[in-house]
Amino acid sequence: MLRQSLLPFLLKHDVVASYQNDVLYILDRRQFPRHVSYYACEDVDSVVKALREMVTQGGANLEVALWAMVMADDQKDNLDITKEKLKKARPTNKTLSYELDYLLEKHRNHIQKGVFEILDKYDNIYDRMSEFGESLIEDGDGILTTCFPEHSFILSVTKAMERGKRVTVYVSETRPYLQGARLTRPSLEEMGVDCVLLTDNLASSYMKEGKITKFMTASDVAFPDKTVVNKIGTLQNAISSSFYKIPYYAFSVGLERERKSGEVEIEYRDASELNYINGNMISTRYYGEYPVFDIVDSSLVSGVITPDGIIK
Amino acid sequence: MLRQSLLPFLLKHDVVASYQNDVLYILDRRQFPRHVSYYACEDVDSVVKALREMVTQGGANLEVALWAMVMADDQKDNLDITKEKLKKARPTNKTLSYELDYLLEKHRNHIQKGVFEILDKYDNIYDRMSEFGESLIEDGDGILTTCFPEHSFILSVTKAMERGKRVTVYVSETRPYLQGARLTRPSLEEMGVDCVLLTDNLASSYMKEGKITKFMTASDVAFPDKTVVNKIGTLQNAISSSFYKIPYYAFSVGLERERKSGEVEIEYRDASELNYINGNMISTRYYGEYPVFDIVDSSLVSGVITPDGIIK
Repeated sequence: MLRQSLLPFLLKHDVVASYQNDVLYILDRRQFPRHVSYYACEDVDSVVKALREMVTQGGANLEVALWAMVMADDQKDNLDITKEKLKKARPTNKTLSYELDYLLEKHRNHIQKGVFEILDKYDNIYDRMSEFGESLIEDGDGILTTCFPEHSFILSVTKAMERGKRVTVYVSETRPYLQGARLTRPSLEEMGVDCVLLTDNLASSYMKEGKITKFMTASDVAFPDKTVVNKIGTLQNAISSSFYKIPYYAFSVGLERERKSGEVEIEYRDASELNYINGNMISTRYYGEYPVFDIVDSSLVSGVITPDGIIK
Repeated sequence: MLRQSLLPFLLKHDVVASYQNDVLYILDRRQFPRHVSYYACEDVDSVVKALREMVTQGGANLEVALWAMVMADDQKDNLDITKEKLKKARPTNKTLSYELDYLLEKHRNHIQKGVFEILDKYDNIYDRMSEFGESLIEDGDGILTTCFPEHSFILSVTKAMERGKRVTVYVSETRPYLQGARLTRPSLEEMGVDCVLLTDNLASSYMKEGKITKFMTASDVAFPDKTVVNKIGTLQNAISSSFYKIPYYAFSVGLERERKSGEVEIEYRDASELNYINGNMISTRYYGEYPVFDIVDSSLVSGVITPDGIIK
């Protein structure tokens, strides 16, 4: 069973999404760590807005969507319409879509009980994945990560440390939104992990010097053939890892079996987002769009860590 | 002869450093393009301070140091002491050191004439290098660059365009100081070059898509064996270029023959610099130091463009 004490503030259930007195409070990750503020939603439409505006992200989207279903149930909203609204808020999030379908199929008459069951299931998934992740970590490792690798990675590292392995984590700041600087580094430090924050152009240099010995990330999608889709910047670090013979492992809560790896459509976002860092304009003009995700060819991936084992 | 009209604002002689009525005005590149402001120096010590604080950078350091010698001569300062002060302001800049020695050796009694001779020599060097650079550019190229590649690269591109070649330049923003966003992009746009600004984690993705077909940078040091030292971030782009079979060329005003490539000592700077973007704090804490330059192994370099030809 997953001990919440092994998780940093940002990943604790009641911080991610807390439903109290008919209001759903979502920690606003866009402001963290400069401000610890909660985005308050009094109805499902405001939850949908919060998801669209990326108040939270990654696996937290599922937790928020599940509590939105509890709120809808309390407010006597139509549960099927609510489910579709939530799915549309984040159309590429397959896990969210799958679990909301499951919730209505199996627990339509006792939503809150179903939500706890699903949250427990993911706690167990993270716990199992982190055991596999921990097994890959060696004493003295310097592990590079990109973006915010969430439960499975952080647990792998904290468990490795509990078991006496010395680990340093190198965190790529992850432009444009700096999830590495704002979410990953503070969370790792909170857990007592030694970490070094890198600008996104520094990792190869640290690999060359021998400081980085592994590369580990979450994944947005991972395929049975080991092709990995993850935040922009993952590809260049995977290429450099391969060049310096450093293994790259990605975590995946479940492999994608519906689509083939060539069929992934990458989300492009407005390049004006690149123009700002924490709301401060850094340049006068950018052009075109930018891809949010990289598709990392399976030849660059040493293994995908799933709840059922490591695909090598 | 180099036509100043082919150069952007930032590289014109009287913008880089202008000596008028006993005051040396240096364009403050740290503020550009948000503010066009000139740092005014009334004596050599204030020029040394400006060089140390990186008011300007790259090849502009030489122009500033040369005019400081003219000012010292006018003010009846000891020229040998002035020369040593200027050398110490930027100890790794070999070109500056070499040219100040030459100035006193050959032109001690007519400093200003010597300064014009040296400035003319570099104009010619840039002009010749850009002919070699231009010859490598093909119609339809998408050229990635890192940091601010100065005269030789910008001239290569503008000459290629004059000769009917269509070129797009992809500019890596180059954290921590964003020289790509602040200096390179505005300068290229001023010359009418199509450019796309990329965060430092995007280039591999654009290479994979086939948009980037060449990688070209300046170099801080280049060796006869093609080992290149250049701004941090150059290495990862060179590795990705090699992975996607995209040629990488570096410009060098003169190959380093005194040291061997293994003997280069890389400057480390205080990591607190990574903490700010345009003066705005982006994270609460960084650790340790960071290397300012990458050493790119010769196996990753397709060619070094010198005033005398392309070393392949």
